[in-house]
Amino acid sequence: MLDRQDRIERTLNTLLPALELAPGRLHAAMRYAVLGGGKRVRPLLAYGAGELSGADLRRVDRAAAAVELIHAYSLVHDDLPCMDDDVLRRGKPTVHLEFDEATALLVGDSLQSLAFQVLSVQSLADDAHRQLEMIELLARASGSRGMAGGQAIDLEATGKTLAVTELEFMHVHKTGALIRASVILGARCGDALSQAQMNEVDRFGKFIGLAFQVIDDLLDAQSSTATLGKTAGKDAKDNKPTYVSALGLDGARKLSEELRADALRALDTLPQSGGRLRQLADFIVSRQF
Amino acid sequence: MLDRQDRIERTLNTLLPALELAPGRLHAAMRYAVLGGGKRVRPLLAYGAGELSGADLRRVDRAAAAVELIHAYSLVHDDLPCMDDDVLRRGKPTVHLEFDEATALLVGDSLQSLAFQVLSVQSLADDAHRQLEMIELLARASGSRGMAGGQAIDLEATGKTLAVTELEFMHVHKTGALIRASVILGARCGDALSQAQMNEVDRFGKFIGLAFQVIDDLLDAQSSTATLGKTAGKDAKDNKPTYVSALGLDGARKLSEELRADALRALDTLPQSGGRLRQLADFIVSRQF
Repeated sequence: MLDRQDRIERTLNTLLPALELAPGRLHAAMRYAVLGGGKRVRPLLAYGAGELSGADLRRVDRAAAAVELIHAYSLVHDDLPCMDDDVLRRGKPTVHLEFDEATALLVGDSLQSLAFQVLSVQSLADDAHRQLEMIELLARASGSRGMAGGQAIDLEATGKTLAVTELEFMHVHKTGALIRASVILGARCGDALSQAQMNEVDRFGKFIGLAFQVIDDLLDAQSSTATLGKTAGKDAKDNKPTYVSALGLDGARKLSEELRADALRALDTLPQSGGRLRQLADFIVSRQF
Repeated sequence: MLDRQDRIERTLNTLLPALELAPGRLHAAMRYAVLGGGKRVRPLLAYGAGELSGADLRRVDRAAAAVELIHAYSLVHDDLPCMDDDVLRRGKPTVHLEFDEATALLVGDSLQSLAFQVLSVQSLADDAHRQLEMIELLARASGSRGMAGGQAIDLEATGKTLAVTELEFMHVHKTGALIRASVILGARCGDALSQAQMNEVDRFGKFIGLAFQVIDDLLDAQSSTATLGKTAGKDAKDNKPTYVSALGLDGARKLSEELRADALRALDTLPQSGGRLRQLADFIVSRQF
Protein backbone atom coordinates (compact mmCIF):
# COMPACT_ATOMS: atom_id res chain seq x y z
CA MET A 1 0.00 0.00 0.00
CA LEU A 2 2.90 2.31 0.78
CA ASP A 3 4.26 1.96 -2.75
CA ARG A 4 0.91 3.12 -4.15
CA GLN A 5 0.72 6.03 -1.71
CA ASP A 6 4.18 7.05 -2.79
CA ARG A 7 3.18 6.70 -6.43
CA ILE A 8 0.10 8.95 -6.12
CA GLU A 9 2.14 11.52 -4.19
CA ARG A 10 4.68 11.70 -7.00
CA THR A 11 1.95 11.82 -9.62
CA LEU A 12 0.11 14.67 -7.91
CA ASN A 13 3.37 16.53 -7.43
CA THR A 14 4.00 16.30 -11.18
CA LEU A 15 0.47 17.26 -12.22
CA LEU A 16 0.08 20.28 -9.94
CA PRO A 17 1.35 23.56 -11.45
CA ALA A 18 4.90 24.51 -10.45
CA LEU A 19 5.46 27.27 -7.93
CA GLU A 20 7.46 29.19 -10.51
CA LEU A 21 4.41 29.58 -12.74
CA ALA A 22 2.20 32.64 -12.24
CA PRO A 23 0.10 33.08 -10.17
CA GLY A 24 2.62 31.71 -7.69
CA ARG A 25 0.62 32.24 -4.53
CA LEU A 26 -2.38 30.35 -5.94
CA HIS A 27 -0.14 27.50 -7.04
CA ALA A 28 1.53 27.40 -3.62
CA ALA A 29 -1.91 27.16 -2.02
CA MET A 30 -3.02 24.41 -4.42
CA ARG A 31 0.07 22.39 -3.58
CA TYR A 32 -0.41 23.02 0.15
CA ALA A 33 -3.98 21.73 -0.12
CA VAL A 34 -3.12 18.55 -1.98
CA LEU A 35 0.40 17.38 -1.14
CA GLY A 36 1.85 15.80 1.97
CA GLY A 37 -1.16 14.48 3.75
CA GLY A 38 -4.23 12.36 3.54
CA LYS A 39 -4.74 8.63 3.49
CA ARG A 40 -5.26 8.68 -0.29
CA VAL A 41 -8.12 6.18 0.09
CA ARG A 42 -9.69 7.10 -3.27
CA PRO A 43 -6.46 6.73 -5.27
CA LEU A 44 -5.74 3.43 -3.49
CA LEU A 45 -9.18 2.18 -4.51
CA ALA A 46 -8.54 3.26 -8.11
CA TYR A 47 -5.20 1.39 -8.15
CA GLY A 48 -6.80 -1.68 -6.56
CA ALA A 49 -9.55 -1.80 -9.18
CA GLY A 50 -7.12 -0.98 -11.99
CA GLU A 51 -4.94 -3.96 -11.13
CA LEU A 52 -7.97 -6.26 -11.35
CA SER A 53 -8.79 -5.01 -14.84
CA GLY A 54 -5.22 -5.39 -16.09
CA ALA A 55 -4.78 -1.66 -16.57
CA ASP A 56 -1.51 0.08 -17.40
CA LEU A 57 -0.52 1.70 -14.11
CA ARG A 58 0.43 4.96 -15.82
CA ARG A 59 -3.17 5.29 -16.89
CA VAL A 60 -4.48 4.55 -13.41
CA ASP A 61 -2.12 7.24 -12.10
CA ARG A 62 -4.22 9.84 -13.91
CA ALA A 63 -7.57 8.45 -12.85
CA ALA A 64 -6.34 8.22 -9.26
CA ALA A 65 -5.01 11.78 -9.37
CA ALA A 66 -8.27 13.12 -10.80
CA VAL A 67 -10.43 11.69 -8.01
CA GLU A 68 -7.97 12.89 -5.36
CA LEU A 69 -7.98 16.41 -6.85
CA ILE A 70 -11.78 16.47 -6.68
CA HIS A 71 -11.63 15.20 -3.10
CA ALA A 72 -9.02 17.80 -2.12
CA TYR A 73 -11.05 20.63 -3.68
CA SER A 74 -14.12 19.51 -1.71
CA LEU A 75 -12.16 19.55 1.56
CA VAL A 76 -10.86 23.08 0.94
CA HIS A 77 -14.35 24.41 0.22
CA ASP A 78 -15.93 22.36 3.00
CA ASP A 79 -13.56 23.91 5.55
CA LEU A 80 -14.47 27.51 4.60
CA PRO A 81 -16.20 29.67 7.23
CA CYS A 82 -19.51 29.62 5.31
CA MET A 83 -19.47 25.80 5.40
CA ASP A 84 -17.91 23.87 8.30
CA ASP A 85 -15.60 26.70 9.38
CA ASP A 86 -12.77 24.37 10.32
CA VAL A 87 -9.23 25.26 11.34
CA LEU A 88 -7.38 21.96 11.01
CA ARG A 89 -7.06 19.52 8.13
CA ARG A 90 -4.58 16.70 7.72
CA GLY A 91 -2.78 18.02 10.79
CA LYS A 92 -2.21 21.49 9.30
CA PRO A 93 -4.08 24.81 9.35
CA THR A 94 -6.83 24.82 6.73
CA VAL A 95 -6.11 26.61 3.44
CA HIS A 96 -8.17 29.71 4.23
CA LEU A 97 -6.21 30.18 7.47
CA GLU A 98 -2.79 29.48 5.99
CA PHE A 99 -3.56 31.74 3.02
CA ASP A 100 -6.91 33.58 2.93
CA GLU A 101 -10.55 32.86 2.10
CA ALA A 102 -10.51 34.21 -1.43
CA THR A 103 -7.44 32.14 -2.24
CA ALA A 104 -9.05 29.03 -0.71
CA LEU A 105 -12.09 29.56 -2.91
CA LEU A 106 -9.91 29.81 -6.03
CA VAL A 107 -7.82 26.81 -4.93
CA GLY A 108 -10.94 24.63 -4.85
CA ASP A 109 -12.16 25.97 -8.17
CA SER A 110 -8.77 25.43 -9.81
CA LEU A 111 -8.34 21.92 -8.42
CA GLN A 112 -11.68 20.94 -9.91
CA SER A 113 -10.64 22.26 -13.34
CA LEU A 114 -7.33 20.45 -13.02
CA ALA A 115 -9.09 17.14 -12.31
CA PHE A 116 -10.91 17.33 -15.64
CA GLN A 117 -7.78 18.47 -17.42
CA VAL A 118 -5.93 15.44 -16.06
CA LEU A 119 -8.64 13.09 -17.33
CA SER A 120 -8.76 14.64 -20.79
CA VAL A 121 -5.09 14.68 -21.78
CA GLN A 122 -3.29 11.59 -23.06
CA SER A 123 -4.92 8.20 -23.38
CA LEU A 124 -6.62 6.79 -20.34
CA ALA A 125 -8.26 4.04 -22.36
CA ASP A 126 -7.61 2.54 -25.79
CA ASP A 127 -10.96 3.91 -26.84
CA ALA A 128 -11.46 7.69 -26.71
CA HIS A 129 -15.20 7.16 -26.36
CA ARG A 130 -14.61 5.27 -23.15
CA GLN A 131 -12.41 8.08 -21.89
CA LEU A 132 -15.28 10.51 -22.53
CA GLU A 133 -17.55 8.23 -20.49
CA MET A 134 -15.02 8.32 -17.67
CA ILE A 135 -15.02 12.13 -17.69
CA GLU A 136 -18.82 12.12 -17.65
CA LEU A 137 -18.78 9.70 -14.71
CA LEU A 138 -16.47 11.94 -12.68
CA ALA A 139 -18.50 15.04 -13.55
CA ARG A 140 -21.74 13.41 -12.43
CA ALA A 141 -20.13 12.03 -9.26
CA SER A 142 -18.83 15.50 -8.37
CA GLY A 143 -21.84 17.65 -9.19
CA SER A 144 -25.26 18.47 -7.81
CA ARG A 145 -26.47 14.89 -8.20
CA GLY A 146 -23.31 13.58 -6.54
CA MET A 147 -20.82 14.95 -4.03
CA ALA A 148 -21.81 18.65 -4.09
CA GLY A 149 -25.48 17.64 -3.91
CA GLY A 150 -24.70 15.50 -0.87
CA GLN A 151 -23.13 18.50 0.82
CA ALA A 152 -26.26 20.54 0.10
CA ILE A 153 -28.38 17.81 1.71
CA ASP A 154 -25.97 17.82 4.64
CA LEU A 155 -26.47 21.59 5.09
CA GLU A 156 -30.22 21.21 5.16
CA ALA A 157 -30.01 18.29 7.60
CA THR A 158 -28.00 20.12 10.26
CA GLY A 159 -30.03 20.29 13.46
CA LYS A 160 -32.49 17.66 12.28
CA THR A 161 -32.89 14.02 13.24
CA LEU A 162 -32.60 11.75 10.21
CA ALA A 163 -33.67 8.14 9.85
CA VAL A 164 -30.94 5.73 8.75
CA THR A 165 -32.43 5.61 5.24
CA GLU A 166 -32.20 9.41 5.00
CA LEU A 167 -28.64 9.36 6.30
CA GLU A 168 -27.83 6.77 3.67
CA PHE A 169 -29.33 8.95 0.92
CA MET A 170 -27.15 11.84 2.09
CA HIS A 171 -23.95 9.83 2.25
CA VAL A 172 -24.54 7.89 -0.96
CA HIS A 173 -24.11 11.33 -2.51
CA LYS A 174 -21.72 13.15 -0.21
CA THR A 175 -18.96 10.57 0.16
CA GLY A 176 -20.34 7.56 -1.70
CA ALA A 177 -20.47 9.00 -5.21
CA LEU A 178 -16.77 9.86 -5.40
CA ILE A 179 -15.65 6.60 -3.78
CA ARG A 180 -17.71 4.63 -6.29
CA ALA A 181 -16.28 6.74 -9.09
CA SER A 182 -12.78 5.94 -7.82
CA VAL A 183 -13.15 2.17 -8.18
CA ILE A 184 -15.00 2.40 -11.48
CA LEU A 185 -12.53 4.83 -13.03
CA GLY A 186 -9.64 2.63 -11.94
CA ALA A 187 -11.30 -0.47 -13.37
CA ARG A 188 -12.20 1.28 -16.65
CA CYS A 189 -8.51 1.97 -17.30
CA GLY A 190 -8.16 -1.72 -18.23
CA ASP A 191 -10.10 -4.34 -20.19
CA ALA A 192 -9.92 -7.56 -18.21
CA LEU A 193 -13.30 -7.36 -16.47
CA SER A 194 -16.64 -8.47 -17.90
CA GLN A 195 -19.72 -6.28 -17.56
CA ALA A 196 -20.97 -8.56 -14.76
CA GLN A 197 -17.66 -8.12 -12.95
CA MET A 198 -17.79 -4.35 -13.46
CA ASN A 199 -21.21 -4.39 -11.78
CA GLU A 200 -19.65 -6.16 -8.80
CA VAL A 201 -16.88 -3.55 -8.67
CA ASP A 202 -19.60 -0.92 -8.55
CA ARG A 203 -21.43 -2.78 -5.76
CA PHE A 204 -18.17 -2.99 -3.83
CA GLY A 205 -17.72 0.75 -4.26
CA LYS A 206 -21.21 1.45 -2.99
CA PHE A 207 -20.81 -0.64 0.17
CA ILE A 208 -17.30 0.50 0.98
CA GLY A 209 -18.30 4.13 0.47
CA LEU A 210 -21.01 3.80 3.09
CA ALA A 211 -18.72 1.86 5.42
CA PHE A 212 -16.17 4.66 5.07
CA GLN A 213 -18.75 7.20 6.24
CA VAL A 214 -19.95 5.11 9.19
CA ILE A 215 -16.35 4.81 10.35
CA ASP A 216 -15.87 8.56 9.85
CA ASP A 217 -18.81 9.19 12.16
CA LEU A 218 -17.44 6.74 14.75
CA LEU A 219 -13.98 8.32 14.66
CA ASP A 220 -15.40 11.83 14.99
CA ALA A 221 -17.28 10.71 18.10
CA GLN A 222 -14.48 8.70 19.70
CA SER A 223 -11.07 9.97 18.66
CA SER A 224 -8.90 12.91 19.58
CA THR A 225 -8.10 15.83 17.31
CA ALA A 226 -4.42 14.88 17.46
CA THR A 227 -5.11 11.39 16.12
CA LEU A 228 -7.48 12.53 13.39
CA GLY A 229 -5.47 15.50 12.15
CA LYS A 230 -8.78 17.36 11.95
CA THR A 231 -11.10 18.69 14.62
CA ALA A 232 -12.76 15.79 16.49
CA GLY A 233 -16.23 15.86 18.05
CA LYS A 234 -17.50 18.36 15.49
CA ASP A 235 -20.62 16.43 14.50
CA ALA A 236 -22.15 16.51 17.96
CA LYS A 237 -21.06 20.12 18.49
CA ASP A 238 -22.60 21.17 15.15
CA ASN A 239 -25.69 19.09 15.88
CA LYS A 240 -25.22 17.04 12.73
CA PRO A 241 -27.14 13.82 12.22
CA THR A 242 -24.67 10.91 12.02
CA TYR A 243 -24.73 7.14 12.13
CA VAL A 244 -23.66 7.41 15.76
CA SER A 245 -26.52 9.77 16.64
CA ALA A 246 -28.96 7.52 14.76
CA LEU A 247 -27.71 4.10 15.89
CA GLY A 248 -25.44 4.64 18.89
CA LEU A 249 -21.79 3.56 19.01
CA ASP A 250 -22.51 -0.17 19.05
CA GLY A 251 -25.14 0.06 16.33
CA ALA A 252 -22.84 2.07 14.08
CA ARG A 253 -19.97 -0.38 14.66
CA LYS A 254 -22.25 -3.30 13.81
CA LEU A 255 -23.41 -1.55 10.61
CA SER A 256 -19.80 -0.94 9.52
CA GLU A 257 -19.08 -4.65 9.91
CA GLU A 258 -22.14 -5.60 7.86
CA LEU A 259 -21.11 -3.17 5.12
CA ARG A 260 -17.58 -4.60 5.10
CA ALA A 261 -19.04 -8.11 4.73
CA ASP A 262 -21.29 -6.92 1.86
CA ALA A 263 -18.33 -5.23 0.18
CA LEU A 264 -16.14 -8.33 0.49
CA ARG A 265 -18.91 -10.55 -0.91
CA ALA A 266 -19.09 -8.33 -4.00
CA LEU A 267 -15.42 -9.16 -4.61
CA ASP A 268 -15.89 -12.95 -4.60
CA THR A 269 -16.33 -13.35 -8.37
CA LEU A 270 -13.48 -11.02 -9.29
CA PRO A 271 -9.92 -12.05 -10.28
CA GLN A 272 -7.73 -12.82 -7.22
CA SER A 273 -10.97 -12.58 -5.19
CA GLY A 274 -10.62 -8.82 -5.44
CA GLY A 275 -6.88 -8.66 -4.70
CA ARG A 276 -5.88 -5.45 -2.99
CA LEU A 277 -9.47 -4.21 -2.82
CA ARG A 278 -9.98 -6.84 -0.13
CA GLN A 279 -7.14 -5.42 1.95
CA LEU A 280 -8.46 -1.90 1.34
CA ALA A 281 -11.88 -2.84 2.69
CA ASP A 282 -10.19 -3.98 5.89
CA PHE A 283 -8.03 -0.85 5.99
CA ILE A 284 -11.06 1.41 5.60
CA VAL A 285 -13.08 -0.28 8.32
CA SER A 286 -10.17 -0.77 10.75
CA ARG A 287 -8.57 2.67 10.32
CA GLN A 288 -7.94 4.81 13.37
CA PHE A 289 -7.77 8.18 11.57
CA MET B 1 -28.73 37.51 -32.48
CA LEU B 2 -32.02 37.21 -30.59
CA ASP B 3 -32.65 33.75 -32.07
CA ARG B 4 -29.31 32.58 -30.74
CA GLN B 5 -29.93 34.09 -27.30
CA ASP B 6 -33.26 32.29 -27.23
CA ARG B 7 -31.57 29.09 -28.30
CA ILE B 8 -28.93 29.17 -25.54
CA GLU B 9 -31.61 30.00 -22.96
CA ARG B 10 -33.62 26.92 -23.97
CA THR B 11 -30.49 24.78 -24.04
CA LEU B 12 -29.39 25.87 -20.56
CA ASN B 13 -32.91 25.34 -19.26
CA THR B 14 -32.82 21.76 -20.54
CA LEU B 15 -29.32 20.99 -19.28
CA LEU B 16 -29.77 22.36 -15.75
CA PRO B 17 -31.16 19.83 -13.26
CA ALA B 18 -34.93 20.03 -12.74
CA LEU B 19 -36.31 21.59 -9.56
CA GLU B 20 -38.06 18.33 -8.74
CA LEU B 21 -34.76 16.50 -8.42
CA ALA B 22 -33.09 16.39 -4.99
CA PRO B 23 -31.48 18.53 -3.64
CA GLY B 24 -34.20 20.93 -4.78
CA ARG B 25 -32.87 24.05 -3.10
CA LEU B 26 -29.44 23.66 -4.71
CA HIS B 27 -31.04 23.11 -8.12
CA ALA B 28 -33.27 26.16 -7.64
CA ALA B 29 -30.19 28.22 -6.84
CA MET B 30 -28.28 26.86 -9.86
CA ARG B 31 -31.18 27.81 -12.14
CA TYR B 32 -31.46 31.24 -10.48
CA ALA B 33 -27.76 31.83 -11.14
CA VAL B 34 -27.83 30.84 -14.81
CA LEU B 35 -31.26 31.49 -16.33
CA GLY B 36 -33.04 34.69 -17.29
CA GLY B 37 -30.22 37.16 -17.56
CA GLY B 38 -26.90 37.97 -19.06
CA LYS B 39 -25.89 39.02 -22.52
CA ARG B 40 -24.71 35.51 -23.37
CA VAL B 41 -21.66 36.95 -25.12
CA ARG B 42 -19.67 33.72 -24.83
CA PRO B 43 -22.40 31.48 -26.28
CA LEU B 44 -22.97 34.00 -29.09
CA LEU B 45 -19.26 33.85 -29.91
CA ALA B 46 -19.40 30.05 -29.93
CA TYR B 47 -22.38 30.08 -32.31
CA GLY B 48 -20.71 32.66 -34.54
CA ALA B 49 -17.54 30.59 -34.83
CA GLY B 50 -19.51 27.36 -35.19
CA GLU B 51 -21.38 28.73 -38.21
CA LEU B 52 -18.09 29.58 -39.91
CA SER B 53 -16.83 26.04 -39.45
CA GLY B 54 -20.02 24.47 -40.77
CA ALA B 55 -20.87 22.88 -37.43
CA ASP B 56 -24.15 21.16 -36.58
CA LEU B 57 -25.91 23.71 -34.36
CA ARG B 58 -26.97 21.03 -31.88
CA ARG B 59 -23.31 20.42 -31.20
CA VAL B 60 -22.56 24.10 -30.79
CA ASP B 61 -25.46 24.26 -28.30
CA ARG B 62 -23.46 22.10 -25.92
CA ALA B 63 -20.17 23.95 -26.39
CA ALA B 64 -21.99 27.26 -25.90
CA ALA B 65 -23.74 25.98 -22.79
CA ALA B 66 -20.50 24.67 -21.29
CA VAL B 67 -18.71 28.03 -21.55
CA GLU B 68 -21.74 29.88 -20.17
CA LEU B 69 -21.93 27.47 -17.21
CA ILE B 70 -18.27 28.14 -16.43
CA HIS B 71 -18.88 31.88 -16.75
CA ALA B 72 -21.96 31.70 -14.48
CA TYR B 73 -20.08 29.72 -11.83
CA SER B 74 -17.29 32.31 -11.85
CA LEU B 75 -19.78 35.14 -11.32
CA VAL B 76 -21.42 33.39 -8.36
CA HIS B 77 -18.06 32.79 -6.66
CA ASP B 78 -16.75 36.23 -7.62
CA ASP B 79 -19.74 37.90 -5.91
CA LEU B 80 -19.16 36.10 -2.58
CA PRO B 81 -18.24 38.20 0.47
CA CYS B 82 -14.67 36.86 0.52
CA MET B 83 -14.20 38.03 -3.09
CA ASP B 84 -15.98 41.12 -4.48
CA ASP B 85 -18.81 41.02 -1.91
CA ASP B 86 -21.42 42.20 -4.38
CA VAL B 87 -25.18 42.42 -3.92
CA LEU B 88 -26.47 42.80 -7.46
CA ARG B 89 -25.94 40.70 -10.59
CA ARG B 90 -27.90 40.78 -13.82
CA GLY B 91 -30.38 43.07 -12.08
CA LYS B 92 -31.14 40.59 -9.28
CA PRO B 93 -29.78 39.97 -5.77
CA THR B 94 -26.63 37.84 -5.94
CA VAL B 95 -26.99 34.12 -5.21
CA HIS B 96 -25.54 34.27 -1.69
CA LEU B 97 -28.09 36.96 -0.76
CA GLU B 98 -31.08 35.29 -2.41
CA PHE B 99 -30.07 31.93 -0.89
CA ASP B 100 -27.04 31.78 1.42
CA GLU B 101 -23.26 31.70 1.19
CA ALA B 102 -22.86 27.95 1.55
CA THR B 103 -25.42 27.35 -1.19
CA ALA B 104 -23.71 29.89 -3.45
CA LEU B 105 -20.42 28.07 -2.95
CA LEU B 106 -22.02 24.74 -3.92
CA VAL B 107 -23.84 26.35 -6.86
CA GLY B 108 -20.54 27.46 -8.36
CA ASP B 109 -18.92 24.08 -7.70
CA SER B 110 -21.86 22.22 -9.25
CA LEU B 111 -22.05 24.48 -12.31
CA GLN B 112 -18.40 23.79 -13.02
CA SER B 113 -18.97 20.02 -12.83
CA LEU B 114 -22.02 20.38 -15.08
CA ALA B 115 -19.98 22.23 -17.71
CA PHE B 116 -17.63 19.27 -18.06
CA GLN B 117 -20.53 16.82 -17.99
CA VAL B 118 -22.17 18.72 -20.86
CA LEU B 119 -18.97 18.54 -22.92
CA SER B 120 -18.45 14.83 -22.31
CA VAL B 121 -21.86 13.37 -23.18
CA GLN B 122 -22.96 12.78 -26.77
CA SER B 123 -20.85 13.66 -29.78
CA LEU B 124 -19.54 17.19 -30.03
CA ALA B 125 -17.20 16.26 -32.86
CA ASP B 126 -17.01 13.33 -35.28
CA ASP B 127 -13.76 12.40 -33.67
CA ALA B 128 -13.80 11.52 -29.95
CA HIS B 129 -10.14 12.52 -29.70
CA ARG B 130 -11.04 16.01 -30.79
CA GLN B 131 -13.80 16.11 -28.18
CA LEU B 132 -11.22 15.22 -25.52
CA GLU B 133 -9.06 18.10 -26.75
CA MET B 134 -12.05 20.42 -26.41
CA ILE B 135 -12.55 19.33 -22.79
CA GLU B 136 -8.86 19.88 -22.11
CA LEU B 137 -9.10 23.34 -23.66
CA LEU B 138 -12.01 24.33 -21.43
CA ALA B 139 -10.30 22.91 -18.33
CA ARG B 140 -7.12 24.88 -19.03
CA ALA B 141 -9.06 28.05 -19.82
CA SER B 142 -10.97 27.74 -16.52
CA GLY B 143 -8.20 26.76 -14.13
CA SER B 144 -5.21 28.30 -12.40
CA ARG B 145 -3.47 29.11 -15.68
CA GLY B 146 -6.68 30.62 -17.08
CA MET B 147 -9.73 32.29 -15.56
CA ALA B 148 -9.25 31.32 -11.90
CA GLY B 149 -5.58 32.28 -12.15
CA GLY B 150 -6.60 35.66 -13.54
CA GLN B 151 -8.84 36.20 -10.54
CA ALA B 152 -5.92 35.38 -8.24
CA ILE B 153 -3.78 37.96 -10.05
CA ASP B 154 -6.65 40.43 -9.72
CA LEU B 155 -6.76 39.86 -5.93
CA GLU B 156 -3.06 40.55 -5.61
CA ALA B 157 -3.32 43.66 -7.80
CA THR B 158 -6.00 45.40 -5.73
CA GLY B 159 -4.65 48.66 -4.41
CA LYS B 160 -1.68 48.62 -6.77
CA THR B 161 -0.96 50.60 -9.90
CA LEU B 162 -0.38 48.33 -12.88
CA ALA B 163 1.21 49.13 -16.21
CA VAL B 164 -0.92 48.40 -19.27
CA THR B 165 1.18 45.31 -20.01
CA GLU B 166 0.48 43.98 -16.49
CA LEU B 167 -3.22 44.74 -16.85
CA GLU B 168 -3.18 42.85 -20.12
CA PHE B 169 -1.52 39.84 -18.50
CA MET B 170 -4.26 39.84 -15.82
CA HIS B 171 -7.12 40.12 -18.29
CA VAL B 172 -5.71 37.70 -20.84
CA HIS B 173 -6.30 35.21 -18.04
CA LYS B 174 -9.31 36.54 -16.14
CA THR B 175 -11.72 37.22 -19.01
CA GLY B 176 -9.64 36.51 -22.10
CA ALA B 177 -9.07 32.80 -21.61
CA LEU B 178 -12.75 31.87 -21.49
CA ILE B 179 -13.69 34.17 -24.38
CA ARG B 180 -10.96 32.64 -26.52
CA ALA B 181 -12.14 29.19 -25.49
CA SER B 182 -15.68 30.14 -26.56
CA VAL B 183 -14.75 30.90 -30.15
CA ILE B 184 -12.38 27.97 -30.46
CA LEU B 185 -14.82 25.46 -28.98
CA GLY B 186 -17.54 26.73 -31.30
CA ALA B 187 -15.26 26.46 -34.32
CA ARG B 188 -14.02 23.00 -33.33
CA CYS B 189 -17.60 21.67 -33.52
CA GLY B 190 -17.28 21.78 -37.32
CA ASP B 191 -14.67 20.92 -39.94
CA ALA B 192 -14.77 23.68 -42.54
CA LEU B 193 -11.82 25.74 -41.28
CA SER B 194 -8.17 25.15 -42.12
CA GLN B 195 -5.52 25.28 -39.41
CA ALA B 196 -4.50 28.74 -40.62
CA GLN B 197 -8.12 29.89 -40.34
CA MET B 198 -8.40 28.35 -36.86
CA ASN B 199 -5.37 30.43 -35.88
CA GLU B 200 -7.16 33.56 -37.07
CA VAL B 201 -10.25 32.56 -35.06
CA ASP B 202 -7.98 32.30 -32.03
CA ARG B 203 -6.45 35.72 -32.77
CA PHE B 204 -9.95 37.17 -33.07
CA GLY B 205 -10.81 35.65 -29.69
CA LYS B 206 -7.73 37.14 -28.08
CA PHE B 207 -8.39 40.68 -29.33
CA ILE B 208 -12.11 40.64 -28.67
CA GLY B 209 -11.54 39.26 -25.17
CA LEU B 210 -9.32 42.21 -24.32
CA ALA B 211 -11.72 44.66 -25.98
CA PHE B 212 -14.52 43.20 -23.86
CA GLN B 213 -12.55 43.95 -20.69
CA VAL B 214 -11.62 47.49 -21.70
CA ILE B 215 -15.31 48.20 -22.34
CA ASP B 216 -16.19 46.60 -19.00
CA ASP B 217 -13.83 49.01 -17.27
CA LEU B 218 -15.29 51.98 -19.19
CA LEU B 219 -18.85 50.97 -18.32
CA ASP B 220 -18.00 50.50 -14.65
CA ALA B 221 -16.57 54.00 -14.57
CA GLN B 222 -19.32 55.72 -16.57
CA SER B 223 -22.64 53.89 -16.26
CA SER B 224 -25.30 53.66 -13.61
CA THR B 225 -26.06 50.58 -11.54
CA ALA B 226 -29.56 50.49 -13.07
CA THR B 227 -28.17 50.29 -16.61
CA LEU B 228 -25.51 47.70 -15.80
CA GLY B 229 -27.67 45.42 -13.67
CA LYS B 230 -24.66 45.16 -11.36
CA THR B 231 -23.02 47.62 -9.00
CA ALA B 232 -21.37 50.43 -10.97
CA GLY B 233 -18.28 52.36 -9.89
CA LYS B 234 -16.91 49.41 -7.95
CA ASP B 235 -13.45 49.42 -9.49
CA ALA B 236 -12.60 52.90 -8.24
CA LYS B 237 -14.23 52.24 -4.87
CA ASP B 238 -12.28 48.99 -4.45
CA ASN B 239 -9.13 50.69 -5.71
CA LYS B 240 -8.72 48.21 -8.53
CA PRO B 241 -6.35 48.91 -11.38
CA THR B 242 -8.31 49.19 -14.64
CA TYR B 243 -7.77 50.38 -18.19
CA VAL B 244 -9.50 53.59 -17.18
CA SER B 245 -7.19 54.17 -14.22
CA ALA B 246 -4.19 53.34 -16.39
CA LEU B 247 -5.14 55.20 -19.59
CA GLY B 248 -7.96 57.59 -18.70
CA LEU B 249 -11.40 57.50 -20.35
CA ASP B 250 -10.21 58.67 -23.73
CA GLY B 251 -7.19 56.40 -23.77
CA ALA B 252 -9.30 53.38 -22.84
CA ARG B 253 -11.85 54.22 -25.53
CA LYS B 254 -9.09 54.54 -28.08
CA LEU B 255 -7.63 51.16 -27.06
CA SER B 256 -11.01 49.48 -27.38
CA GLU B 257 -11.29 50.80 -30.95
CA GLU B 258 -7.81 49.53 -31.81
CA LEU B 259 -8.65 46.13 -30.41
CA ARG B 260 -11.89 46.03 -32.39
CA ALA B 261 -9.94 46.85 -35.56
CA ASP B 262 -7.39 44.11 -34.77
CA ALA B 263 -10.20 41.65 -34.13
CA LEU B 264 -11.97 42.51 -37.38
CA ARG B 265 -8.73 42.18 -39.33
CA ALA B 266 -8.29 38.66 -38.01
CA LEU B 267 -11.65 37.79 -39.60
CA ASP B 268 -10.67 38.93 -43.10
CA THR B 269 -9.52 35.54 -44.37
CA LEU B 270 -12.45 33.62 -42.91
CA PRO B 271 -15.59 32.48 -44.78
CA GLN B 272 -18.18 35.30 -45.13
CA SER B 273 -15.42 37.61 -43.81
CA GLY B 274 -16.21 36.27 -40.35
CA GLY B 275 -20.04 36.40 -40.66
CA ARG B 276 -21.73 36.99 -37.36
CA LEU B 277 -18.42 37.29 -35.50
CA ARG B 278 -18.05 40.67 -37.24
CA GLN B 279 -21.39 41.84 -35.83
CA LEU B 280 -20.46 40.46 -32.43
CA ALA B 281 -17.25 42.47 -32.36
CA ASP B 282 -19.31 45.61 -32.93
CA PHE B 283 -21.85 44.51 -30.31
CA ILE B 284 -19.14 43.91 -27.72
CA VAL B 285 -17.43 47.25 -28.27
CA SER B 286 -20.66 49.29 -28.63
CA ARG B 287 -22.59 47.73 -25.76
CA GLN B 288 -24.04 49.92 -23.03
CA PHE B 289 -24.33 47.22 -20.33
